[in-house]
Amino acid sequence: MTSNHSPSPSSGPPPIRRIAQPTVRRLSLYLRFLEDCDERGLATVSSQELARLGGTTSAQVRKDLSVFGSFGKRGLGYAVPELTTALRDILGLGREWRVVIVGAGKIGTALAQYAGFRQRGFTIIAVYDNDPAKIGTRWAGHTVRDVAQLEADAAREQPAIAVLAVPAERAQETADRIVRAGVTGILNFAPAQLHVPAGVTVQTVNMAAELEVLSYALANRDGG
Amino acid sequence: MTSNHSPSPSSGPPPIRRIAQPTVRRLSLYLRFLEDCDERGLATVSSQELARLGGTTSAQVRKDLSVFGSFGKRGLGYAVPELTTALRDILGLGREWRVVIVGAGKIGTALAQYAGFRQRGFTIIAVYDNDPAKIGTRWAGHTVRDVAQLEADAAREQPAIAVLAVPAERAQETADRIVRAGVTGILNFAPAQLHVPAGVTVQTVNMAAELEVLSYALANRDGG
Repeated sequence: MTSNHSPSPSSGPPPIRRIAQPTVRRLSLYLRFLEDCDERGLATVSSQELARLGGTTSAQVRKDLSVFGSFGKRGLGYAVPELTTALRDILGLGREWRVVIVGAGKIGTALAQYAGFRQRGFTIIAVYDNDPAKIGTRWAGHTVRDVAQLEADAAREQPAIAVLAVPAERAQETADRIVRAGVTGILNFAPAQLHVPAGVTVQTVNMAAELEVLSYALANRDGG
Repeated sequence: MTSNHSPSPSSGPPPIRRIAQPTVRRLSLYLRFLEDCDERGLATVSSQELARLGGTTSAQVRKDLSVFGSFGKRGLGYAVPELTTALRDILGLGREWRVVIVGAGKIGTALAQYAGFRQRGFTIIAVYDNDPAKIGTRWAGHTVRDVAQLEADAAREQPAIAVLAVPAERAQETADRIVRAGVTGILNFAPAQLHVPAGVTVQTVNMAAELEVLSYALANRDGG
């Protein structure tokens, strides 16, 4: 069932630098299921099972996993602990990521309280806002800081990721400030296309677009 | 600048049924910029301008928009009001979508208060939870209802979309209930792959996967 793979699971993953985003998303989903398997004490999992849980085909699972080296055992499936560790490493989860949230609104609150955030090694170290009514108040276990402090704080605390959760009209100027602060990863929740220099990675979560993908599908499904 | 297009902007869009999701996302972004142009009183916008704002190429813009018919005027660019109306129609935004939120937690709160939601014709008609401590309380302008009522309420109120914002371990059973209630569009925020019958459309927003796309990019960017 893993006939595309060598029977040896021992070699580590080769250094891969470019995987397409849809593949990264599937790897993230496989990892979630593998962690469940691990908790339930399962030693192996088949590509068919991963495919079923991930809503894809076993050929796709084998293809996705083959690029990282050899984790399959012919006829036995994938070794759960080895594949779990490899996927964590590949996804950059074998370490702590220091995260700041910029914008102490509802989206920021939801993220700060999202358990999966911490479980995956994303540690929120500070929260910023520009609203004098919010600065200095307690917020999800943090004291809200003035966004004007960001550059000075970041020089000391070295966050790797900033969650950008401000209104669209303030998104670019806030992103510029984040970039000046030396933060090179931005998770952007503002409905705006950000312009950042090379070396800064932006991942945008566009709530309106998600809704519109859904309304498009509904509107065009049964004749309009 | 719109040389792929007929000079006549008058014909409506042909009935298109299948557009790839990345294209729908770009259309959503173009619409946002067109609405800005409209507010500023601009009559036309070039494919170059749309490309710059959308972070893509003008060739891509022309390709994306060409499938809907003829909105370009040779040498003048796209007619802002006509293209805005056409994109709204195509994205299913020319109507009201009745939405229920299932799960009165932080994600649900953030969405309920998200202005873009209402602006685009998504009206939240009810909020559900299974927690006796929450049922009957006021929440973002609604009284939280018992999720056990969902089927009966939906038969009367006919929501088109359910936002699923419950923990992963309750996601499938809750989706099953939504499907039984006759709701055919699900915006899923639970980190779980849902199994639904044909005729039901699921759009999943996976926060953990968004973070992992970012951590993957950061971890594999500079040799680390």
